[in-house]
Amino acid sequence: MPKAKPRNALYAQSGGVTAVINASACGVIEGALKHRAHIGRVYAGKDGIVGVLTENLIDVSAEDRATIRALRYTPAGAFGSARFKLKGLEENRAEYERLIEVFRAHDIGYFFYNGGNDSMDTANKVAQIGAQLGFPIACIGVPKTVDNDLPYTDCCPGFGSVAKYIAISTLEGALDVASMARTSTKVFVLEVMGRHAGWIAAAGGLAGKKPGDPPHIILFPEIAFDKALFLAKVRYCVDAHGYCVVVVSEGAKYADGKFLAEAGTKDAFGHTQLGGVGPVVANMVREAHGYKFHWAVADYLQRAARHIASKVDVEQAYAVGRAAVEYAVQGKHGVMPAIKRLSSKPYRWKIVPVPLAAVANVEKTVPRNFVTADGFGITAACRRYLEPLIAGEDYPPYENGLPKYARLKAKAVRRKLTSTFSVK
Amino acid sequence: MPKAKPRNALYAQSGGVTAVINASACGVIEGALKHRAHIGRVYAGKDGIVGVLTENLIDVSAEDRATIRALRYTPAGAFGSARFKLKGLEENRAEYERLIEVFRAHDIGYFFYNGGNDSMDTANKVAQIGAQLGFPIACIGVPKTVDNDLPYTDCCPGFGSVAKYIAISTLEGALDVASMARTSTKVFVLEVMGRHAGWIAAAGGLAGKKPGDPPHIILFPEIAFDKALFLAKVRYCVDAHGYCVVVVSEGAKYADGKFLAEAGTKDAFGHTQLGGVGPVVANMVREAHGYKFHWAVADYLQRAARHIASKVDVEQAYAVGRAAVEYAVQGKHGVMPAIKRLSSKPYRWKIVPVPLAAVANVEKTVPRNFVTADGFGITAACRRYLEPLIAGEDYPPYENGLPKYARLKAKAVRRKLTSTFSVK
Repeated sequence: MPKAKPRNALYAQSGGVTAVINASACGVIEGALKHRAHIGRVYAGKDGIVGVLTENLIDVSAEDRATIRALRYTPAGAFGSARFKLKGLEENRAEYERLIEVFRAHDIGYFFYNGGNDSMDTANKVAQIGAQLGFPIACIGVPKTVDNDLPYTDCCPGFGSVAKYIAISTLEGALDVASMARTSTKVFVLEVMGRHAGWIAAAGGLAGKKPGDPPHIILFPEIAFDKALFLAKVRYCVDAHGYCVVVVSEGAKYADGKFLAEAGTKDAFGHTQLGGVGPVVANMVREAHGYKFHWAVADYLQRAARHIASKVDVEQAYAVGRAAVEYAVQGKHGVMPAIKRLSSKPYRWKIVPVPLAAVANVEKTVPRNFVTADGFGITAACRRYLEPLIAGEDYPPYENGLPKYARLKAKAVRRKLTSTFSVK
Repeated sequence: MPKAKPRNALYAQSGGVTAVINASACGVIEGALKHRAHIGRVYAGKDGIVGVLTENLIDVSAEDRATIRALRYTPAGAFGSARFKLKGLEENRAEYERLIEVFRAHDIGYFFYNGGNDSMDTANKVAQIGAQLGFPIACIGVPKTVDNDLPYTDCCPGFGSVAKYIAISTLEGALDVASMARTSTKVFVLEVMGRHAGWIAAAGGLAGKKPGDPPHIILFPEIAFDKALFLAKVRYCVDAHGYCVVVVSEGAKYADGKFLAEAGTKDAFGHTQLGGVGPVVANMVREAHGYKFHWAVADYLQRAARHIASKVDVEQAYAVGRAAVEYAVQGKHGVMPAIKRLSSKPYRWKIVPVPLAAVANVEKTVPRNFVTADGFGITAACRRYLEPLIAGEDYPPYENGLPKYARLKAKAVRRKLTSTFSVK
């Protein structure tokens, strides 16, 4: 029986980037290089799926091995990522057909899509349409999201590192406030990411080991904000401990679903204020109690903080990339490598395939039993879940005081199509 | 000749804390323990000078050696610090007399005051009044300030670590923005500390190695803000590079001296907006160009970030603490150990004494030749100055994914005075 000719692989990054999405890229690429019988060249979409639609591909096989290796400790999206959600098949069949056209032109037999919920949905649809158009393609979703909101996986690569960053930042910021509270700032508010799920806010809770330790208050999107109760707890903490540390999720909202951030102030032109639930909450405290306050908004720093990534997170990010390739060459498709927890202490896990159709567009939020009765803290069960995910350090190499992150040559793949495709 | 009886030492932390002020404490304490012939017990003011005035002292000699050692890698003020500036001798002689009363009661022969400009002034006055009241005391200032604005020293302990944190955060945040700019955020603004001096903002510039690298724009307090020029440069950067990264000092101001942060928005009650020049600048860009933007405010996280402290900074912080004790036992007083740069490549430095009177209340800002002609970047001379200060990493030990910072017993020293002193 003649052996099938190897086909090429295409990797694309999608959605908000993380400290370890490139570690997954590293896993995919190093995995593909080990399967030369099945996989020919490895390409990447420049700026994610946008680069695929516009036939802007990067020739990953042209990078040297050391650069590929360095992706493991390089944050953000080395090939570029995109906030670009493909519409439904009925609404915009042209986009899916274009993808297949590009795949066909470059003999893509394997598509690895590294993203969150939306991306798993897209990968699933691409697999379907490829089959319908007579162009079979192994579509594997590679999970990634700092929000940690994918179902059927113990956690999402990217989350462990942001969790570690926020836990450390909360610990360090709280030590600062505690040392100055006698004559200075009494209330410190740290705003963290998480529009719908409070996993990152929950991670701030790891900074406290015993009752009374900061953070004293966590505001979750999952728990309706009770202003009176919040202000009473702030006052109690300042009375009892001399200061109060608050970790607030950007998605914190009132019982009616209105975001706290929206409830803020307007500028001189009547525009809704500049954003940031951190300052809104801090100002609330000032108005009610008059305490001196400070607030911090970590924003992109939290998800790009490769300098203090979780070792477990890096290992998992790499492992899902590697597993994706194994699944592909085994003929699995329409699946996502997920992390299955075998035990918490010690933390043991393995990679298992789950169908993309099951994962797509389902959101896993923080369960009520992970939040203390008053709604302001994390429970022992939550701590048991979170703690292993921030374990271990995985420092990048440094040069002249700064991390030495990978810089790709990013050689463009020669275009084969004469048609173009416009992406807004 | 009979040997003089050892007298006790008092250490106090003052002003905003840093990632390495406790390393200076470690230097003072370990130094004192080596001079038992001169120095008896070591005390610390609880919450700085406030604890001295109210006779709330911590018995440092009761801590075990491992805890003292751990101060070297513990951020913030382990003994508590205070924003409390003693008034002039004429205005409030009572405060100075009270200090001497407490010193006399506890047989304090050595006073180590660890702070910035104001604290050097205070230490100097305490030395004078002690002599006037017939209670000689060796007053040594130990330099500390993230602002890096003390004169007669190459740099200030605390600055190197915040500089490293901001340089790394700028690098990592910029990688994030660059990967997403095609379809998402075009302009990212990072607000950093530095009310009057732009040293921390300048450190953000270390993230860029060659022309066109981010940060594309730095806004210094020393350079009058030119809105039209700024907006034009933002547009140019987005056109040329696809995105624009801005590092803005909290002290950035217009030519008339008005802070950008003040020029911001008002809330529904007419209060000046919640603070933060970062959102003000980001909103300015949105109004002019309509670009999608994000902003981060590092706030206390930057000065507490011991997890990524500069090794050079830690070594210097420890060294000034140790030198302070050597000076004291040598009979020097009214001095501050300063850092003298001997060469930049390789970075070599030594500790030299400078008179407190010379240091007190003088502010060293970023010189014009450290800023590029257009006012938005750092020059090669600035880079040569800054680069050695962020060199090397000095990681703390970790346990369960978090740094294991020192926790003091903080045993109170038994009071000897019946009089009390009220501090507002």
